[in-house]
Amino acid sequence: MVPAADRRVREEKSCDITQIQLSYDCSFIFIMAVLCISFLFQLLFCLAFSLPTGRNSICGYRSCPPTNPSMLNVHLVPHTHDDVGWLKTVDQYFYGDRNYIQHAGVQYILDSVIDQLQKDPARRFIYVETAFFYRWWRQQSQSTQRIVTQLVNEGRLEFINGGWCMSDEATTHYSAVIDQMTLGLRFLNDTFGECGRPRVAWHIDPFGHAREHASIFAQMGYDGFFFGRLDYQDKARRMNTKEMEMLWRASESLTPPVADLFTGVLPNGYNPPAGFCWDQSCDDAPIRDDPDLEDYNVDEIVQLFLNTSYRQAAFYKTNHIIMTMGSDFQYENANLWYKNMDKLIKYVNALQAKGSKVNVLYSTPSCYLQELNLANFTWPLKTDDFFPYADDAHDFWTGYFTSRPALKLYERLSNSRLQTCNQLEVLGGPKSTSGPFGEGDSDTMKRAMGVAQHHDAVSGTEKQHVAYDYARRLATGWAHCEVLVRNSLAVLSGSEAPRVFCENLNISVCPLTESSRKFSMNVYNPLARTVRWPVRLPVNGSAYSVTDSTGKAVDSQVVPLSKSSKEVRRNRGYAKSELVFQVEAPPLGYSTYVISMLQDEPPASSTKPTATRSIQNKFLKVTFDDTTGLLSSLTNLETNQTIRLSQNFYWYNASAGNNEESRQTSGAYIFRPNSSDPFVINKTAEIQISTVSSTVQEVTQWFSPWVSQVVRLYEGRRELELEWTVGPVPVADGLGKEVITRLDTDIKSSDYFYTDSNGREVLERRKDYRPTWDLKQTEPVAGNYYPINSRAYIKDDKHQLTVVTDRSQGASSLYNGSLEIMLHRRLLYDDFRGVGEPLSEPGVFFDGLVVRGRLLLTLTPPDTAADVHRPLAQGMVLQPLLSFQDGTPSVNTKLQFSGLQAALPPAVHLLTLSQWDKDLVLIRLEHQYEAKESKTYSQPVTVNLQKLFSTLEVLGASEMSLGANQWKEDMNRLQWNTEKTSKPHPLSAKDPSAWEVTLNPMEIRTFLLRVQQLQN
Amino acid sequence: MVPAADRRVREEKSCDITQIQLSYDCSFIFIMAVLCISFLFQLLFCLAFSLPTGRNSICGYRSCPPTNPSMLNVHLVPHTHDDVGWLKTVDQYFYGDRNYIQHAGVQYILDSVIDQLQKDPARRFIYVETAFFYRWWRQQSQSTQRIVTQLVNEGRLEFINGGWCMSDEATTHYSAVIDQMTLGLRFLNDTFGECGRPRVAWHIDPFGHAREHASIFAQMGYDGFFFGRLDYQDKARRMNTKEMEMLWRASESLTPPVADLFTGVLPNGYNPPAGFCWDQSCDDAPIRDDPDLEDYNVDEIVQLFLNTSYRQAAFYKTNHIIMTMGSDFQYENANLWYKNMDKLIKYVNALQAKGSKVNVLYSTPSCYLQELNLANFTWPLKTDDFFPYADDAHDFWTGYFTSRPALKLYERLSNSRLQTCNQLEVLGGPKSTSGPFGEGDSDTMKRAMGVAQHHDAVSGTEKQHVAYDYARRLATGWAHCEVLVRNSLAVLSGSEAPRVFCENLNISVCPLTESSRKFSMNVYNPLARTVRWPVRLPVNGSAYSVTDSTGKAVDSQVVPLSKSSKEVRRNRGYAKSELVFQVEAPPLGYSTYVISMLQDEPPASSTKPTATRSIQNKFLKVTFDDTTGLLSSLTNLETNQTIRLSQNFYWYNASAGNNEESRQTSGAYIFRPNSSDPFVINKTAEIQISTVSSTVQEVTQWFSPWVSQVVRLYEGRRELELEWTVGPVPVADGLGKEVITRLDTDIKSSDYFYTDSNGREVLERRKDYRPTWDLKQTEPVAGNYYPINSRAYIKDDKHQLTVVTDRSQGASSLYNGSLEIMLHRRLLYDDFRGVGEPLSEPGVFFDGLVVRGRLLLTLTPPDTAADVHRPLAQGMVLQPLLSFQDGTPSVNTKLQFSGLQAALPPAVHLLTLSQWDKDLVLIRLEHQYEAKESKTYSQPVTVNLQKLFSTLEVLGASEMSLGANQWKEDMNRLQWNTEKTSKPHPLSAKDPSAWEVTLNPMEIRTFLLRVQQLQN
Repeated sequence: MVPAADRRVREEKSCDITQIQLSYDCSFIFIMAVLCISFLFQLLFCLAFSLPTGRNSICGYRSCPPTNPSMLNVHLVPHTHDDVGWLKTVDQYFYGDRNYIQHAGVQYILDSVIDQLQKDPARRFIYVETAFFYRWWRQQSQSTQRIVTQLVNEGRLEFINGGWCMSDEATTHYSAVIDQMTLGLRFLNDTFGECGRPRVAWHIDPFGHAREHASIFAQMGYDGFFFGRLDYQDKARRMNTKEMEMLWRASESLTPPVADLFTGVLPNGYNPPAGFCWDQSCDDAPIRDDPDLEDYNVDEIVQLFLNTSYRQAAFYKTNHIIMTMGSDFQYENANLWYKNMDKLIKYVNALQAKGSKVNVLYSTPSCYLQELNLANFTWPLKTDDFFPYADDAHDFWTGYFTSRPALKLYERLSNSRLQTCNQLEVLGGPKSTSGPFGEGDSDTMKRAMGVAQHHDAVSGTEKQHVAYDYARRLATGWAHCEVLVRNSLAVLSGSEAPRVFCENLNISVCPLTESSRKFSMNVYNPLARTVRWPVRLPVNGSAYSVTDSTGKAVDSQVVPLSKSSKEVRRNRGYAKSELVFQVEAPPLGYSTYVISMLQDEPPASSTKPTATRSIQNKFLKVTFDDTTGLLSSLTNLETNQTIRLSQNFYWYNASAGNNEESRQTSGAYIFRPNSSDPFVINKTAEIQISTVSSTVQEVTQWFSPWVSQVVRLYEGRRELELEWTVGPVPVADGLGKEVITRLDTDIKSSDYFYTDSNGREVLERRKDYRPTWDLKQTEPVAGNYYPINSRAYIKDDKHQLTVVTDRSQGASSLYNGSLEIMLHRRLLYDDFRGVGEPLSEPGVFFDGLVVRGRLLLTLTPPDTAADVHRPLAQGMVLQPLLSFQDGTPSVNTKLQFSGLQAALPPAVHLLTLSQWDKDLVLIRLEHQYEAKESKTYSQPVTVNLQKLFSTLEVLGASEMSLGANQWKEDMNRLQWNTEKTSKPHPLSAKDPSAWEVTLNPMEIRTFLLRVQQLQN
Repeated sequence: MVPAADRRVREEKSCDITQIQLSYDCSFIFIMAVLCISFLFQLLFCLAFSLPTGRNSICGYRSCPPTNPSMLNVHLVPHTHDDVGWLKTVDQYFYGDRNYIQHAGVQYILDSVIDQLQKDPARRFIYVETAFFYRWWRQQSQSTQRIVTQLVNEGRLEFINGGWCMSDEATTHYSAVIDQMTLGLRFLNDTFGECGRPRVAWHIDPFGHAREHASIFAQMGYDGFFFGRLDYQDKARRMNTKEMEMLWRASESLTPPVADLFTGVLPNGYNPPAGFCWDQSCDDAPIRDDPDLEDYNVDEIVQLFLNTSYRQAAFYKTNHIIMTMGSDFQYENANLWYKNMDKLIKYVNALQAKGSKVNVLYSTPSCYLQELNLANFTWPLKTDDFFPYADDAHDFWTGYFTSRPALKLYERLSNSRLQTCNQLEVLGGPKSTSGPFGEGDSDTMKRAMGVAQHHDAVSGTEKQHVAYDYARRLATGWAHCEVLVRNSLAVLSGSEAPRVFCENLNISVCPLTESSRKFSMNVYNPLARTVRWPVRLPVNGSAYSVTDSTGKAVDSQVVPLSKSSKEVRRNRGYAKSELVFQVEAPPLGYSTYVISMLQDEPPASSTKPTATRSIQNKFLKVTFDDTTGLLSSLTNLETNQTIRLSQNFYWYNASAGNNEESRQTSGAYIFRPNSSDPFVINKTAEIQISTVSSTVQEVTQWFSPWVSQVVRLYEGRRELELEWTVGPVPVADGLGKEVITRLDTDIKSSDYFYTDSNGREVLERRKDYRPTWDLKQTEPVAGNYYPINSRAYIKDDKHQLTVVTDRSQGASSLYNGSLEIMLHRRLLYDDFRGVGEPLSEPGVFFDGLVVRGRLLLTLTPPDTAADVHRPLAQGMVLQPLLSFQDGTPSVNTKLQFSGLQAALPPAVHLLTLSQWDKDLVLIRLEHQYEAKESKTYSQPVTVNLQKLFSTLEVLGASEMSLGANQWKEDMNRLQWNTEKTSKPHPLSAKDPSAWEVTLNPMEIRTFLLRVQQLQN
């Protein structure tokens, strides 16, 4: 599959501090040779001037310190946990700005650690967050860079995890997680080569752990995974049964051990044991070992350490234990830590001469992991996930599943834009980044998205000013992408006419469409199959003609702007109506629509309150209750199945912490309703039929001045759209509110419901139940909430009601046939997890943020549900990008384009298409169905890499690990023994040929392609 | 004067990183040569292995960075201010222990600064407190010591001030100050040689500044002095008139420029200007100079710095200004400071290319001082002092003059003991430190006393637990000295019989005297003249015989123990009576008294309340008022002069900060009475005549259960003793109390009174007046308080009433003929200067500390007053040491000894006699009279150094600076121009010969003597 020339390059990457870079011509080899020689000279120079004397490049497991098999080995792991934004922005954290908010300055942490590592070769440090390391590295002198490289090559500084951030696991989408990991790992690889490749995944802070994350880590080649937070009941049980360390089988579809990940629960979160915190931020006693000074305390400290070690060892299987010596933003003055740990090691180990059996050493997670592996034990198997997370009986971290819903949507939308930007960078060629509209790039957006995946970013658990910063970064990222997209579309279409993007279509604002009498609209489709898509443009005319790329007329209507949209947009736009029509765009390509105003009077209002019974298209019918105005039933006209469906909006009264059992409040992290019964916003909805047209049928429901909904059925579509608008949530009554919508059906779902994991595989949930331990339920609502990233469903033998969402949210099923989704939260108290603010987002014009979103409902038999919800959800994630040009397109404009020779098979999703380097493109192909969910699609499917692109010739292809930092064939993960499982595993199909790659259910394959643009 | 051999050694001290050490034989030269060669090899080794490349030893002024004469030069002085105890003990500060009290760890500061200095040769740092540096240095590896030495030799690390601590100026005695400076400077000299010699005195924190301190600094060879705190009115005036820098003429007796000291007031205390604090303890914005990151702020910071510089420059004369870049315990993570200062310097100076006239540089106080000197300006002259210090209208720092009176006495007593210990180490020879009683040393006590001089130690402004630590250190120091003293007295007396010291004689507790029927008492006299001294021993017999060294009987009486003493001692002793007699001891020697019990019944109580009119001896008569029981008059029977004298006890009601004008409370630092009128404890005193015997006459006055006094007249003495006992001060009424005693006389003192400066020269004070500015008095009591260390007086043409005190106290004269002294303070509120505790000292058995002390009153004509109070005060400072042996002395015991061939002339005080090194002894001779205070003694006086000692032969002598870290002849201080003064200065007399040294009034001369013990 890989041309011979590739192999040659790869075999020659012996000078492994340079990056893995594929190359295919001799000039590159020459440059590398020169670099190698230059490096050797630099190394000689270093050695000659007695920089850290170097054993060269014995990083990884080979660099691990010796341990003592007859003793209890205590692995001290010096580390810092550097949030990529939380109470301060990522750049404020980097510089140590605004220390009055929180004392934290990452630039100084890295300065200090590098200094201290040089003082003793035994000292170790791990670094995790590449977003920070990248900032720091760029500011260093060559000589510092040389020193750091040497430390990395000797395993004294080791990168762990290594993504751009330590991503949140509950509210992130796998696509963005893979991207952010790739971004971080690539920087490390480019900078340090093989010695910079992290061996261990390290999610010490995220608030619960997703199975899909574990699967991703396994596929990225990580040998193990450590985390700090899990349910307190689960932890207690695992400590008692010595199941703190286990093998996590993270996929039901992938053949073991592909998605198997050794997983360890850290003993003490990620903090040092009590009494041993020697950071400047701690107050523990330093080791005072000068007998001439006061308070000599060596004996006392050593004894405490021995006791602590034995106590901890009782919960783990092997004669190795790990102690995390660090915490949030620690090591700004690393000397304090190392000086005292040096003494600790010296005095504890000195006791061995007197018979002590404790051996303490500087170590790293990977060195600890290696010892566990060498122990060759059989480890317990874990197949579910670690949600929800509770750290006490009334302290369920299930609020952040929904916190900051607008940021959560913006992050999701930004992912879509980034994928579009990446694709157009590839399709448009070099002019994309430097073309008629100037210099554009996708890197800014990649970094912004990388930062946004942080577990205090998209999670919504940051301070308000930091949330603004994340949004600003995404906007800046998109501004850079906009230039790139303009350039690329200019190349592809042959038109350099100005092109505008309308950021605010969701609030019906777009200056061009509002004012122009004739304009064209480019619809770019980032999916690898043709999509149809309803479009709503704010306009001021009363009739328009719309024609597609072939000049064919498209059915369209002008409908009056809804009252809710007028309220939300305020004075940012002045459209009176919306032009509604459906568009279609080819795979990985665009089509162009030309819109001309026919009549510029305002339309007569067609909206009047009417008692309606139902709306329907050819696939779906939905009815409303005469009395209440609520939904009453849903029918799939194709399958001829109907369910009773009632839907309404409610709010839980957020706990103010005044409960006798616990002072816990609801806050950015924690969901704690004061009562299990939510208040209904309104038992009845005031109904308008907004529109009944050939394109769309809409019913608007008003529940209160701050809750409304449009129930919408587009022509030719199989999903019912519920567009909800919530806010500003009133809190003048002194009550924090957590707003949900609840769907009540006659589906016999019993206690079961289903939620996706990071937008990929679906896990079964059961009320008041955990698969691996005997749950004592203490919060009947909050303790049953789970994160959903793209969908949730309930089902019985006949019916499956699936809800596809536009962003991550919290969801539950508390009653038979019921599914509830939390939409918005406005709270009055901080919840004591550090953020120090109540979650009460300000609005732009109002007191409190108004949020609008969409739920897409499908009703199907269970066994064909995935056939509908998989593509529906991918379409929600990767949305078409609309761009507009005023006037008529010039005659030479290419109005339609597809980057693919043909649409990919329905089971295949083009997850990544991104420029990697000159002539190199990163591509990820994903089988988007689970092994058993679709009779039609849960089958191996083959794609020919050479026949993918319409405008690119593929010259070579090399498969890589999911993180793209290792050749697939070089992946050689540690192997682990686990309990025998009776489940037979599906055999995966093989690739038919070098160019034809086969995808098995849920498989993602990552390739570096060497490409060249075809001359057209 | 110095033998030729000495000169040779001294001329050969070219290898000046070794210490100045006098030597007189060739073996020493040989050792030095070997050391020199070994050092050169080490240096070659260093250079070869590329430790900081070295220009070798161009420290001092030559190492100063270049400045720009056409610009405003801003000297950034990186510094840390490390209190030798305050909120934490000195060792807690050193280690960084108990950071929950205050984040501070000096070990890390020095670690960090040394690391950072190595990164850039332009960086500078000054270090001040040798007590800390000494602790740190001992723990360093040889390689670190080599690096530090190199940094010192290049002037990159510079020692400033360099005493063991930064001493308090208000409550210290000059003897202890000179000792602690000598201790610190010697360590620096021994360790670093000439490059370790501080050029600048640096008292940035002490709360007011004593003239005697300035005089001491001048005589120690300092070229200049900088401080931070002065009266806010004074500072405002000096800023307006550009008199922030001046020449301080610090003695009225010494010939200028001997005691002239260039003195600068720092612009901003000792802190950096607002916005430029980059320590980890600060929150100022770091310089964010990466344009790719958020919040680039270089332009803004540079502009702020330029504005700040110009604003500051307006208050100073030259085109150089100094900025103190540091504060309390800063630089624990020096990288933060240096990284940002590097950037500041880079960006500010980069503007010079665009016409900016500001040049900013790393500098030191000495480099700044050198530039001021080179400016060759005429500087204003200052002749008074900087007391009292107020930082606002109602914020007079005059409470600490008295705070912690028991600690203040214990410190003073410890000085006396240390001098005794030092002397006996010399007199007893090598066996003193290693003899029959084990290993003893004076170093522990020297260091304890060094620490106790700190401006939060003897000042009383530390936390309670720290005050205990200071006392504990002094006790430990004395325990080491006790061994030395036992050994030495064994050598001198020929008796190795066990010897005990009675620590608690002041509360009438001494187990040996209480129980023994026969014992001997050794009275060691540390003064260079014979003293007579009353002794009071707790006993249980009713009659004793006392014989002196010659076997002659000594008049003695057994008097019943006072009620007050019984209350104070509680169950620590059980004596029923005290044996009272007077002893005499020869100069620098001892006499031995043998005491035998004659009768062991308890004496019939001889005490009964009687109406008494007066007590008198042959020199003094004192009368009491019949009605009130208070003193009514004092008569000097020799001079036949009588004054009306009334004395009583009062308390000021401490402000609780509830005044409208100011929230300021009275506290450890601040004295702020709620009203100017103190409350009288009692208008009448209950009187007992305790004793009328041939040795002593005593009248006990009871003012209240917590205030009593014994008025005492010993036979043959010219002073009246007032022994006051105050406490526990009751505060159950919710009122803080500041207890004074006030002497009211008919002396026509008007507004004038006189106080000593650190126990040496006396300054005239005037109520509501400052010599150098037009005072706006805002606190009529507190604003007139001044520190007294040994004495205060009021006078008119005929009478001078002098009060000699046993410790430092605050005093004032608020009325004509009146003198008041504050004795004790018990307060209920903290005063917001950082200590964070109300000053309310717990007692041992009682609720609140009981304090006992003595005031010695003399009445004389003004022109002979000094003849009495000078020796009286020296006797109070250097008290005889009593030690006891049970039973009868063995026949071979030498019962009497004098270390001197003869008493020194009355004007001469032996200030220091201390072992310096094997065969080397440090001696300081002091003329203890001011130039104009005594017709008899204010004359030059000559002493022959070879004829001093009775048991030591003096082989050589070299005169040194007062701090003993420089040859006198090498002293070459910077010269300064000042205003012409009309006062003619006395010409000082010259030395008649090499061995005969002449002392002019108030002169102290310091010599290193080479001695050998005479075989007796």
